[in-house]
Amino acid sequence: MLEGEEELSSPHMAAFVERHRQQLAADAVLICDEAVLDPQTPLIMYGVRGTLYLEVEVRGPENDLHSGTFGGAVDNPFNVLVRLLAQLQDPETRRIQIPGFYDRVQPPDDAERALLARVPITDEVARSLARVPVLAGEEGYTTIERVCVRPTLEIHGLPGGFTGPGKKTVIPARASAKVSMRIVPEQDPDEIAHLFGAYLRSMAPPTVEVTIHTLGASRPAVIDHTAPAIQAMSQAFERGFGAPPVYLRGGGSLPIVADFQDTLGAPVVLIGFGMPDDNTHAPNEKFHLPNFYRGIETLIQYFSLLRAAI
Amino acid sequence: MLEGEEELSSPHMAAFVERHRQQLAADAVLICDEAVLDPQTPLIMYGVRGTLYLEVEVRGPENDLHSGTFGGAVDNPFNVLVRLLAQLQDPETRRIQIPGFYDRVQPPDDAERALLARVPITDEVARSLARVPVLAGEEGYTTIERVCVRPTLEIHGLPGGFTGPGKKTVIPARASAKVSMRIVPEQDPDEIAHLFGAYLRSMAPPTVEVTIHTLGASRPAVIDHTAPAIQAMSQAFERGFGAPPVYLRGGGSLPIVADFQDTLGAPVVLIGFGMPDDNTHAPNEKFHLPNFYRGIETLIQYFSLLRAAI
Repeated sequence: MLEGEEELSSPHMAAFVERHRQQLAADAVLICDEAVLDPQTPLIMYGVRGTLYLEVEVRGPENDLHSGTFGGAVDNPFNVLVRLLAQLQDPETRRIQIPGFYDRVQPPDDAERALLARVPITDEVARSLARVPVLAGEEGYTTIERVCVRPTLEIHGLPGGFTGPGKKTVIPARASAKVSMRIVPEQDPDEIAHLFGAYLRSMAPPTVEVTIHTLGASRPAVIDHTAPAIQAMSQAFERGFGAPPVYLRGGGSLPIVADFQDTLGAPVVLIGFGMPDDNTHAPNEKFHLPNFYRGIETLIQYFSLLRAAI
Repeated sequence: MLEGEEELSSPHMAAFVERHRQQLAADAVLICDEAVLDPQTPLIMYGVRGTLYLEVEVRGPENDLHSGTFGGAVDNPFNVLVRLLAQLQDPETRRIQIPGFYDRVQPPDDAERALLARVPITDEVARSLARVPVLAGEEGYTTIERVCVRPTLEIHGLPGGFTGPGKKTVIPARASAKVSMRIVPEQDPDEIAHLFGAYLRSMAPPTVEVTIHTLGASRPAVIDHTAPAIQAMSQAFERGFGAPPVYLRGGGSLPIVADFQDTLGAPVVLIGFGMPDDNTHAPNEKFHLPNFYRGIETLIQYFSLLRAAI
């Protein structure tokens, strides 16, 4: 099966899998969309974060206004919007401050923390992969935990107003923000969208109207990594890459993981041959060619081992 | 003299007036760039606010990053930027919170408050001109005072990141904001730019680099409205519009007011024939045609009255 809508959160996949559940019945589902840590360290993902992508719109004056004529007498939608957005995350602990946001989040237990602690990515390696001066994240968690078992919130851009070169002294009639959250088991995207909206509206002054549109949502998933179909992949990696895999829960979102797992009741084997420095979704995206050939070998081994395992 | 660079803060005018001060020597300077309150209420501006227009840039990762891979482990420049911008203005009092910002601001004295209280614009009229659900502004001042004798701060737009239709889960490498302030006597734009930059940088976390570019600056000015050349205009309005003018300090910025006043030592007579609902600098800008003919009559009267007055 080739899925071409994954970047849109696979809006038709759940219905498709449901409709064709008989034809799709399988012992295991193999999804090959992930990365290895480096050419010597393959990786099995035993979960994914979900996503909730929202657009916040703040409307003030009916038309754009001149800040010389009206500046000081009306609330500027962007002045209001940045104040609302600033309340989403604590600047010190980087905790998300939406009331109820963490209510269903399961903190990792000792066994999971130990499994994740085996991932051989030091903070210095992570910092250099991200190409940032300093890492930063939620207080009380390691870098690996922050990107795989903890939820996050990102502002991607703020459409509206004047963004061209030079200057224009306009008070914009409306201001928007694209905000997404990575969510983790057992957070529900619909419930989080509701909490987000209620929180922002509770803080908004009466000078503006706040509207929130959901642009995309996908559920998180966690997979039992001791399943035979997954242990077979561990052996296949040893043969194809010459090393056993490390285990991680994925920071990204693959809505089809939850769809396959829930509908087909089969373990999802989530692997891939990309690299962390591939600049995924960013300028200069690449693919490491040697992984292409190791990947072919690994998959040949996998189909052979799988028959014995299940 | 026709000035074509006013929207750029007249970058060459000060030097031009200085160089030609002998040829420009005058008893009064008439600038016709303002508005009447309504067709029955002409207006004399006895001052203008200055402007300081800045672009704030927050740089984090060297490249855009995928929020699935790195979300939670790095600071997002937009998450940081909205927190910094949110600290510029108190959400309750709408006071600007940059330390030292108000140090040189002269509050209006009783005589000035009385003069401004004569301006026949009720809050309901102002609200309906601005087409906002509710007015809002600095605590302790009337709407008229807020737009003419008090400084303000506006966010005009936030370039950077993803602002197209739909969704993209990018952590942008950089985030920017266009911010301007209307400043009042005796605030100095260079000093305010310095205070603004020091304040933002003092709050910025070590995960980002903050750079501030000045895109434009102009000085505020206040004019002695009892000067004979200005009183002559008052009489000219009575003849051209059939009513005496009200007196206001302008909320907008005309850098040439300070340039003419300081270099030529002549009073600046600041009037105009636009209307408050002209949608200046906004979609559907217009000009009220009857004011065109009343304006011609008023100026004819003015030049005749001026000869007797000075």
